[in-house]
Amino acid sequence: MSDRLPTLAVVGATGAVGTVMLDILSTRENVWGEIRLVASPRSAGRRLTVRGEEVEVQALAPEVFDGVDVAMFDVPDEVSKEWAPIAAAHGAVAVDNSGAFRMDPDVPLVVPEVNAEKTRDRPRGIISNPNCTTLSMIVALGALHREYGLSELVVASYQAASGAGQEGIDTLRDQIEKAAGDRTLGERAGDVRAAVGELGPFPAPLAMNVVPWAGSLKDGGWSSEELKVRNESRKILGLPDLRVSATCVRVPVITTHALAVHATFEREVDASAARELLAAAPGVVVQDDPANAEFPTPADVVGTDPTWVGRIRRSIDDPRSLDLFLCGDNLRKGAALNTAQIAEVVAREFTGS
Amino acid sequence: MSDRLPTLAVVGATGAVGTVMLDILSTRENVWGEIRLVASPRSAGRRLTVRGEEVEVQALAPEVFDGVDVAMFDVPDEVSKEWAPIAAAHGAVAVDNSGAFRMDPDVPLVVPEVNAEKTRDRPRGIISNPNCTTLSMIVALGALHREYGLSELVVASYQAASGAGQEGIDTLRDQIEKAAGDRTLGERAGDVRAAVGELGPFPAPLAMNVVPWAGSLKDGGWSSEELKVRNESRKILGLPDLRVSATCVRVPVITTHALAVHATFEREVDASAARELLAAAPGVVVQDDPANAEFPTPADVVGTDPTWVGRIRRSIDDPRSLDLFLCGDNLRKGAALNTAQIAEVVAREFTGS
Repeated sequence: MSDRLPTLAVVGATGAVGTVMLDILSTRENVWGEIRLVASPRSAGRRLTVRGEEVEVQALAPEVFDGVDVAMFDVPDEVSKEWAPIAAAHGAVAVDNSGAFRMDPDVPLVVPEVNAEKTRDRPRGIISNPNCTTLSMIVALGALHREYGLSELVVASYQAASGAGQEGIDTLRDQIEKAAGDRTLGERAGDVRAAVGELGPFPAPLAMNVVPWAGSLKDGGWSSEELKVRNESRKILGLPDLRVSATCVRVPVITTHALAVHATFEREVDASAARELLAAAPGVVVQDDPANAEFPTPADVVGTDPTWVGRIRRSIDDPRSLDLFLCGDNLRKGAALNTAQIAEVVAREFTGS
Repeated sequence: MSDRLPTLAVVGATGAVGTVMLDILSTRENVWGEIRLVASPRSAGRRLTVRGEEVEVQALAPEVFDGVDVAMFDVPDEVSKEWAPIAAAHGAVAVDNSGAFRMDPDVPLVVPEVNAEKTRDRPRGIISNPNCTTLSMIVALGALHREYGLSELVVASYQAASGAGQEGIDTLRDQIEKAAGDRTLGERAGDVRAAVGELGPFPAPLAMNVVPWAGSLKDGGWSSEELKVRNESRKILGLPDLRVSATCVRVPVITTHALAVHATFEREVDASAARELLAAAPGVVVQDDPANAEFPTPADVVGTDPTWVGRIRRSIDDPRSLDLFLCGDNLRKGAALNTAQIAEVVAREFTGS
């Protein structure tokens, strides 16, 4: 252990999540010495601002990892798959936000509020950041699990367009503009589809609609997104037998995922006690006073760091179940922020703080 | 029993559901003799078209029910509460689409595909039509229940603006127009709220947002809409001990409710068998081929009569559970169509057909 501030590399600095990452690195407590910005060769040479200073973007190459202690990856799966092991071979701890390594038994899947201790158990030198949908709920569920012992989750998602990247955002904005003029749309089958034009990354119109699909098709009719919610929740919570059913649905919201969660526990629950427990949990804000129209909504939560929880109810017919509505910014806690938090946990190994 | 075609009164003929009702009466097989249109005194004298003929609207008064065999009510709860018993006292069978009588033990709650036989059991001369959210799923669930024996439902809704009436539709259209111009909206907390202006009948902005609230606040933090899903499902299916948890969420869709349903049964289920069973059920259409982007969405379902079902999956961790995504037009099957179907069942008592 030394007093040297560790060197950080941000790989994918020019992307949607990378852009949020530079903002996060500029506003959180500074634990880093040098910060290197890395991107594809076509972005090399661009100058981006981080911590108030302009930094030139370097092209991704093995030698950019020389002397790097922690390398964050906000890039597509196939780029991470190739380059995170190269960073690790150069001695960096790779913190990866792609899906490439999440279910690898030799790669920990970390949410610092839930399982920070797993960062040290990294035989491949790689730590994975969970999928944004899982991250939108897991901090709150982790706090409830510690108290009541989670046994089953039924999840329905209300996922934002930005989960499909900048193309998702642009497509939804284009569709809303095309749909906005016509005050008869949405009352006859297919007229929204005819009006909105390009579907972009979505399999159906998203403006004035909801689309029950995200990701790719897997066995049994499940989407890859739904299986991620199941498999990643099990791994993060250390519950390999947790029963999970998720239905993932895209909604016409720019950024911030919401989820309706029916959680069943080993012990009986109490809504007031659960509310207090969540209010005291790090990274969670409770907003739950429907008499005064107080509950989280994506438009009010976007751009903030915590997981917001409201509509906390004990199931009428099962004293061991809670029903909740949660919101989390899928680009912040759902991606860049959690990656930064994992990297900060690793940074403490260098500074001893 | 006579061969006389029965006389029908449509009370609330000028409202949002009443307008759909006149369209439905004009397109379904004609089982009615005279059709009388009734509304509040301020709408009296207007001439509306039904079955291709202009009919003058009469003001609601006891004598409009003289000689009426069936009276449909598409009016607010308090109007039904006062006037459905008056219609019944005049010898009409009142078919009521309000919430006034749904949980009255002396009033049957009927979905013809599920429990048509209950129409005869009407000691008060009143038959109730269920809430639109319950109706969006109950035909499909009734078919599954007959085969597998339903034991628990976990429901998350994606409810359209028109569930809050014409004011809901107008508010959402206004908000979409105000939000459409600005290509930065939805990335900072509160900017959508500032942009969209009037909230209308909703407790938060609906454009570019989702709002986890519908109805009024009840004990335990539940909304009235969520309790309707529970209590009406139990009554229609004849399952007083059915476990039900619902989270009702408004989405920026004009018309057609969608629901993600996790249904648990007494017996093991099979997704292929469930798909075939639903495809054969009256009033249900299966659209379930995600590899070809085939699943129901509100924009493609609006204006149609059936309950559309897709994303039919057996839960990975529980062989007795199915996960489904359903869509139903909340103004048609969810309101006017089901009322018309109940009235037609009663009409057969007169014609003997």
